Amino acid sequence: MYDLIIVGAGPAGLSAAVYGRRAGLDLIVIEQKPMGGGQVLDTYEVDNYLGLPGINGFDLAQKFRSHADGLGAVFKSGRVTAVRDEGEKKVVETADGKSYEARTLILAGGAEHAKLDVPGEEAYRGQGVSYCATCDGAFFKKRDVAVVGGGDVAVEDAVYLSRFCRKVYLIHRRDSLRAAKSLQDKLFSCENAEVIWNSTLQEIRGSDLVEGICIREKGGETERKLAVDGVFIAVGMRPKTEHYRELIACDEGGYLIAGEDCATSVPGIFAAGDIRTKALRQIVTAVSDGACAVASAEKYLISRQ
Amino acid sequence: MYDLIIVGAGPAGLSAAVYGRRAGLDLIVIEQKPMGGGQVLDTYEVDNYLGLPGINGFDLAQKFRSHADGLGAVFKSGRVTAVRDEGEKKVVETADGKSYEARTLILAGGAEHAKLDVPGEEAYRGQGVSYCATCDGAFFKKRDVAVVGGGDVAVEDAVYLSRFCRKVYLIHRRDSLRAAKSLQDKLFSCENAEVIWNSTLQEIRGSDLVEGICIREKGGETERKLAVDGVFIAVGMRPKTEHYRELIACDEGGYLIAGEDCATSVPGIFAAGDIRTKALRQIVTAVSDGACAVASAEKYLISRQ
Repeated sequence: MYDLIIVGAGPAGLSAAVYGRRAGLDLIVIEQKPMGGGQVLDTYEVDNYLGLPGINGFDLAQKFRSHADGLGAVFKSGRVTAVRDEGEKKVVETADGKSYEARTLILAGGAEHAKLDVPGEEAYRGQGVSYCATCDGAFFKKRDVAVVGGGDVAVEDAVYLSRFCRKVYLIHRRDSLRAAKSLQDKLFSCENAEVIWNSTLQEIRGSDLVEGICIREKGGETERKLAVDGVFIAVGMRPKTEHYRELIACDEGGYLIAGEDCATSVPGIFAAGDIRTKALRQIVTAVSDGACAVASAEKYLISRQ
Repeated sequence: MYDLIIVGAGPAGLSAAVYGRRAGLDLIVIEQKPMGGGQVLDTYEVDNYLGLPGINGFDLAQKFRSHADGLGAVFKSGRVTAVRDEGEKKVVETADGKSYEARTLILAGGAEHAKLDVPGEEAYRGQGVSYCATCDGAFFKKRDVAVVGGGDVAVEDAVYLSRFCRKVYLIHRRDSLRAAKSLQDKLFSCENAEVIWNSTLQEIRGSDLVEGICIREKGGETERKLAVDGVFIAVGMRPKTEHYRELIACDEGGYLIAGEDCATSVPGIFAAGDIRTKALRQIVTAVSDGACAVASAEKYLISRQ
């Protein structure tokens, strides 16, 4: 039985691994993807992680992972399908039929991209529909693309794509953007970017690949067609908590309810990073959570000795 | 009138400067010391800031500062002596008679080393008494020194000093250490380190320089003398809130009462880093606070527009 199992190897999980190893805990990290870094991996450039300005997401993910590796963190590959609370023992089961036991858990599986659930979205995924401009944008050089959303990520995506796409439409359902003003200013200064306000995406059409979209203005009855080769959907995140919801209290968005100390409704189980209820989901708030969750886990372990 | 004044250029203040500049806020940072970085500057090696393993504190402080510089943050030199809340306007006064106005403030002045308040402590400060082993340890090569305290910092200091001092005494008033187990294990494996349990420092003596200390065992009546050339005091921190206590609600330790959103009892004034009430004071929790405080300040500014 381990002292600690960390589920997820994004910024929160890797920071927890660093703090856990430095605290001398016998721990493993279970991650379903071959690489650590979580959403950082899918990020073109990170410029707000203090001390590492303007770093490529892939490079930052590598630095994070190798920091944990250097301290002797052990990684297991697996997709977690169930977590059980047996009091002093917590059990984690993975899709390949393995199970792992520990005295404490830190759930740091993060969140994933929300879907629009419109016709064509699923069918054309990877055939012109993308949830990550920085991953897939380069496939659309000198082409016309649409971005759907109005937050920081959507506007960042539109600005990024405008550098090499011919035309970028930003489809937003409201008459103002939620994104930071500096991002909005950047977007409005892009000559090949156009915001289509008060409009929703109705359908994604094509043959083998995406060829266009249908949008409808708020209150309007007619649909407008736009010829685009790519559709980038940036309408928010869903926490990866589907296997925890029966055991651990969640809010209405599905996030694990936990404060700054990362303690969930189950003693000995902690939630760190994008997966928990918090106001600001950023790399550095996830990294901070990893440290706080380990401190809480240590206190819990000492209290049970 | 600025959008934001940040007081303090440690990890919290510099992270706030990075997030504030990226959010397009017109801001200044007021710092009393010539360099940024706060307590990081006084740290020999930082190994738990994810992505930058085993970095020298001075180098990390430089990276933090240059990140903020690169985004165009403006720094003002000054020691803040008063903060006034005039509703939509906040006023910051400095010791040199200047005053600055902004719509929001982020107080990130951190904390400083607690004193023992024993005879000789003040008189021999800098003459053998130090609050920073990593800053001053090198002056005591092949000499005998004492460290006072029982937390992470005290044990880290003792381990650090044992590498090059002849003998290191750790004077602790209890019969067990609060420090992380991994640190304790390290200390107990140092052949030239000795823990003196259940004992308090009574006096620091010397001529021009420190020559020895008097300690007393709990419940005992006699003092014991130890010949040492250096005394490193690591008995905790005091938040730098003396000029804010009348305006802003503080806890009994003098920390500004603020949660994860960094909001204090005064609307528009936020507290970030070691200065606020929190469970874990680490570089990364301070950096996270800088981001959260700016997000809260932006929300406040938008709500007043």
